[in-house]
Amino acid sequence: MSGNTLGRLFTVTTAGESHGPALSCIVDGVPAGIEVSLEDIQVDLDRRKPGTSKHVTQRREDDLVRILSGLFEGKTTGTSIGLLIENMDQRSKDYSKIAETFRPAHADYAYQHKYGLRDYRGGGRSSARETAMRVAAGAIAKAALKQLFGVTVRGCLTRIGDIRAELKDWDAVNQNPFFCPDPDVVPALEALMVQTRKDKDSIGAELMVVADGVPPGWGEPVFDRLDADIAHALMGINAVKGVSLGDGFDVVAQKGSEHRDELTPEGFKTNHSGGVLGGISSGQQIVARLALKPTSSIQIPGDTIDVNGNPAEVITTGRHDPCVGVRATPIAEAMLAIVLLDHALRQRGQNGHVQVTTPNIEA
Amino acid sequence: MSGNTLGRLFTVTTAGESHGPALSCIVDGVPAGIEVSLEDIQVDLDRRKPGTSKHVTQRREDDLVRILSGLFEGKTTGTSIGLLIENMDQRSKDYSKIAETFRPAHADYAYQHKYGLRDYRGGGRSSARETAMRVAAGAIAKAALKQLFGVTVRGCLTRIGDIRAELKDWDAVNQNPFFCPDPDVVPALEALMVQTRKDKDSIGAELMVVADGVPPGWGEPVFDRLDADIAHALMGINAVKGVSLGDGFDVVAQKGSEHRDELTPEGFKTNHSGGVLGGISSGQQIVARLALKPTSSIQIPGDTIDVNGNPAEVITTGRHDPCVGVRATPIAEAMLAIVLLDHALRQRGQNGHVQVTTPNIEA
Amino acid sequence: MSGNTLGRLFTVTTAGESHGPALSCIVDGVPAGIEVSLEDIQVDLDRRKPGTSKHVTQRREDDLVRILSGLFEGKTTGTSIGLLIENMDQRSKDYSKIAETFRPAHADYAYQHKYGLRDYRGGGRSSARETAMRVAAGAIAKAALKQLFGVTVRGCLTRIGDIRAELKDWDAVNQNPFFCPDPDVVPALEALMVQTRKDKDSIGAELMVVADGVPPGWGEPVFDRLDADIAHALMGINAVKGVSLGDGFDVVAQKGSEHRDELTPEGFKTNHSGGVLGGISSGQQIVARLALKPTSSIQIPGDTIDVNGNPAEVITTGRHDPCVGVRATPIAEAMLAIVLLDHALRQRGQNGHVQVTTPNIEA
Amino acid sequence: MSGNTLGRLFTVTTAGESHGPALSCIVDGVPAGIEVSLEDIQVDLDRRKPGTSKHVTQRREDDLVRILSGLFEGKTTGTSIGLLIENMDQRSKDYSKIAETFRPAHADYAYQHKYGLRDYRGGGRSSARETAMRVAAGAIAKAALKQLFGVTVRGCLTRIGDIRAELKDWDAVNQNPFFCPDPDVVPALEALMVQTRKDKDSIGAELMVVADGVPPGWGEPVFDRLDADIAHALMGINAVKGVSLGDGFDVVAQKGSEHRDELTPEGFKTNHSGGVLGGISSGQQIVARLALKPTSSIQIPGDTIDVNGNPAEVITTGRHDPCVGVRATPIAEAMLAIVLLDHALRQRGQNGHVQVTTPNIEA
Repeated sequence: MSGNTLGRLFTVTTAGESHGPALSCIVDGVPAGIEVSLEDIQVDLDRRKPGTSKHVTQRREDDLVRILSGLFEGKTTGTSIGLLIENMDQRSKDYSKIAETFRPAHADYAYQHKYGLRDYRGGGRSSARETAMRVAAGAIAKAALKQLFGVTVRGCLTRIGDIRAELKDWDAVNQNPFFCPDPDVVPALEALMVQTRKDKDSIGAELMVVADGVPPGWGEPVFDRLDADIAHALMGINAVKGVSLGDGFDVVAQKGSEHRDELTPEGFKTNHSGGVLGGISSGQQIVARLALKPTSSIQIPGDTIDVNGNPAEVITTGRHDPCVGVRATPIAEAMLAIVLLDHALRQRGQNGHVQVTTPNIEA
Repeated sequence: MSGNTLGRLFTVTTAGESHGPALSCIVDGVPAGIEVSLEDIQVDLDRRKPGTSKHVTQRREDDLVRILSGLFEGKTTGTSIGLLIENMDQRSKDYSKIAETFRPAHADYAYQHKYGLRDYRGGGRSSARETAMRVAAGAIAKAALKQLFGVTVRGCLTRIGDIRAELKDWDAVNQNPFFCPDPDVVPALEALMVQTRKDKDSIGAELMVVADGVPPGWGEPVFDRLDADIAHALMGINAVKGVSLGDGFDVVAQKGSEHRDELTPEGFKTNHSGGVLGGISSGQQIVARLALKPTSSIQIPGDTIDVNGNPAEVITTGRHDPCVGVRATPIAEAMLAIVLLDHALRQRGQNGHVQVTTPNIEA
Repeated sequence: MSGNTLGRLFTVTTAGESHGPALSCIVDGVPAGIEVSLEDIQVDLDRRKPGTSKHVTQRREDDLVRILSGLFEGKTTGTSIGLLIENMDQRSKDYSKIAETFRPAHADYAYQHKYGLRDYRGGGRSSARETAMRVAAGAIAKAALKQLFGVTVRGCLTRIGDIRAELKDWDAVNQNPFFCPDPDVVPALEALMVQTRKDKDSIGAELMVVADGVPPGWGEPVFDRLDADIAHALMGINAVKGVSLGDGFDVVAQKGSEHRDELTPEGFKTNHSGGVLGGISSGQQIVARLALKPTSSIQIPGDTIDVNGNPAEVITTGRHDPCVGVRATPIAEAMLAIVLLDHALRQRGQNGHVQVTTPNIEA
Repeated sequence: MSGNTLGRLFTVTTAGESHGPALSCIVDGVPAGIEVSLEDIQVDLDRRKPGTSKHVTQRREDDLVRILSGLFEGKTTGTSIGLLIENMDQRSKDYSKIAETFRPAHADYAYQHKYGLRDYRGGGRSSARETAMRVAAGAIAKAALKQLFGVTVRGCLTRIGDIRAELKDWDAVNQNPFFCPDPDVVPALEALMVQTRKDKDSIGAELMVVADGVPPGWGEPVFDRLDADIAHALMGINAVKGVSLGDGFDVVAQKGSEHRDELTPEGFKTNHSGGVLGGISSGQQIVARLALKPTSSIQIPGDTIDVNGNPAEVITTGRHDPCVGVRATPIAEAMLAIVLLDHALRQRGQNGHVQVTTPNIEA
């Protein structure tokens, strides 16, 4: 594994740069017999794709996916699934400036040192474009989770800058360009985004992803914990700088008597843990959060150096998202779904479907 | 890999329960020729071991480690290193209560559902005791990082409850029982811990770990990012609910013009990123934080259920840490060291020691 | 990993059925800066492709490969390389017979039990067509091995039925349709193939693959031995039933005094070991052999059962190779190259380029 | 994974040199609830251990195993199992000769180049002593295979030098020091071994391992094929130079009409395939063979070089097996059992227990 594969039993391997011919992906380990349609995948891709509102990059990409293998008569065959998205909008432009200068807070500098060379067009492999295939693979994972285990995965925005969105209505999430679960906050978000664009600046965001229906028992103790793998997957999304389960960093100021989720025959009373205990799912709702930094591609001049180490000034022009968090909800959902399916299959493989006498698990 | 192995080229595999005969560990992939002594490992184990102050569990374990293989004349041979710590303090007691009742916020409930049975004595594999071997393996990783790459890893406490500790003095860290880098705060921490014990309650904590000397280029783009693997490793420590790099969740309210680390010929001006850009080390100091929940083992009665689903009340007696964060600094250092060595070797394998013209990297 | 990925640091993941839209492949972990051209890959694909002589299947596939990512200005960037081959010859035909009946010695029966369903058109994923992508990935591995380490990989036919071919001339190998290294034997092979086709039967074959220039030190002791990974890779080729290194099964009747390769300051005197000692390359030529069974797709009626367990008779019509060994040499080369590059990178990662005082290694 | 771990869902990680303090092993991924006793493991260790007849090395090692973790009340808990065997017979002797001189056909030379240093005492990690832990882990795998799937694994000797043993009686196998399934051949084997020792030489051997009860459907198509993983595991045993399934290298001279195993409602008519079709188990008996070279530790002088590249002569004194194949049957059984359990769990995880209408599978 060389960095472009995620998972153990259910694996997702991706390839493709922003300005190359195409993105490709191989999804392996999907159980046979899962119904998957092109539409299922395209729906999620369309939720992520650029150009759908004025608050995101105006880059035009239809993100039309082709399924190359692994399906037969509408069902997965158990063999590897090839996916392809051709790149359309490879606008020819002059990259000589980017080629010679490192943009602050971009991956340019790190790539140059790592590889000794880099495909500087559009950020190459570090482009957010790469995440399209994660979303496609995640759609397949969602289908398998739903059909095999009755598990659903959803996400939403919880904050941009200082504007917080409460989880008031899941149905609202797909009805605004921010994946905001509180319709009342949408105007304020729009105003903030307009101002941010006007300032030629960018801004950070926080998202939440949840999974319902996960039974107790997924996740391995010690290293391959469910929470550790969720943290890995979410921190692996571009621009993410923080990840948490349940109460997250708030636990620092909590007491044990306050944090612990007491149990009753009707289920847990609370869900401070975010649905994971000792690295293993508890049967409660899985709740994770992620913090995304403000994108570094802003039109305010900044100090940098060129590839020879000389001082330089850089302004990032072009079509960029002023808040990468706006389009990231489908990506976060996909990553959570991929991790969950992988652990579901591992648990089934190693311990079967364990049934012990238990109360109803709700909360 | 079944959950008890961490890493790809440098791997750490652990086994052992709290109340079984012994803990064991196999450290694999250590390059040949690294000087490792029993003392190096024991020093870190002693920093973690219980019973060293009144603020931690009074369980007595000497945690004396034996090296079983992989060393010859004081140097690693390149073959796998076996480690062993015999369990000493297996106080015989009546576990029937714990066997029949799930302790709230413990792993009991999840284990029971996962496996259909569990070793309930002392928490079995979910005991913090398991982390001793991570510390031992981490000491070997630290030695290799230091000798091969000049990299050092350190950690400290930054907060318990509402008491924050600034990083004033690295030397102070090992001179108080909290790994607190600000001597002036230690009395307040002591008072807080005394009160917490008196209240029979527990409390959360936040730690910081840093690595100096990491060159640019470690970490893989996309899934096996350095930050993603750090998040995985730190979230994999018992009781951790949140993990962050650099400015962490504060990025949500930041603007791009504020967050981006500008570059000069003398190095980066700031380090908001925590030393990772696009998943790859930037040459800056690696800075990560982790939030640990208050331990669930408290002496305040709580509601729960028994294995038959009937309501029950539980009080956790016995010798427990009122703040698991107090002893966790060596564990967090170990986890960071393990991840870094693994990525160092991967980078060397895949891209050699890339040298491009660069400025001095400081900041 | 779910069965369609090979390797650890250098990885090859494939997807695609015989009768689906396309074959795809993601090659990951290729060091940056390797010169790779479409022509390099196409040359090897053309050596494997069907329809090039009357002794192989007459199925028409141009096997034109597209490189989708991971290259920039003719060099690898260190990121994952996407490859695509569209399927052309999806001749529409009636598959109802195959759908209902298991062909003896085919994978049909095993697939049906494994997955509960199968893509029966053309054998689906078990078709030899899948190996095209192994050849493409192998061409990239060959380029990296050559440019980074000066290692070359070659293969040839050593036997079909009772006709043995001595290694007389490497240049002859690509000048006949059998990859036969002895031009004098080619007429006998042709006669044998004509007779086999006339009999509507098929026949087995033996191949040899060698690598020159492998330095001592590649391969890990114990499980991930170089010879074990070569055995894994070669046994993973369709129809292979036996694999050996060096003297292979002949060692059973050898004495130690006969088998051991003595060392002189000028190098090894002999190469009974096939270039691997204790799982690690010795610096000698790597020599491996593989035995391929006669293909099961023959036009002689055979007994079988249908999916309901009732007796049936089957005749495989259609366009099949009467000797799968004839086209397998490029596949075997590819598999050896993939394993070698993976181990080369692992060795570089874990132990650098070890230099000790040694004699010239020849033999 | 760095070479000392085998498997994916069921994993075995080993450590330990011939002359270090102890051998250790961590067995991970064993399903919970399997009954495992110390006796089960010790029985297989005793079958492998040295000194049990005059035909094997007279080195004295009791090979007493301790189980350190992962068991509770006689059953596996699903967590990792630590195993320990202390080394007893570390006879002090003068290793200066071996330290300075490479023994022909030993791993010395390869180790020195790989690592730049080596633990030369008793061959270090390349010693056959390392295989004791494989046998211990294999005993656990056998128990799980038996209890979960009703699968049994057995092995026997089929040939030493030119003396072939037919499979006449499984019960005879454990009643002679050669694991020979034909009692009539035992005297000839004894005579051959006596002569070989007298000649101060060594000799090769061939073994067979079989598994009964494997259902159709284990193994993944393409790379992680069951036969490929068996080949990997068996080639990973010290001294093995060839591995085969079913008819093995004999297939080279077979015709398709002869090789294919026809199906009837009562099962397969024959088993030329060795129980694997397309990389997946067919429900027939799994049959594999392995060829072991004559050990290189012989007392006949041979040419070699010292670490400075100067010519030298070497005679291996000490206590060595004149035929390493004699004690290798339990090792081969263990390796097969480990591979099968791993694939059994993968199949259960990914595709459940698929049930389709099929005939009785016998043959």
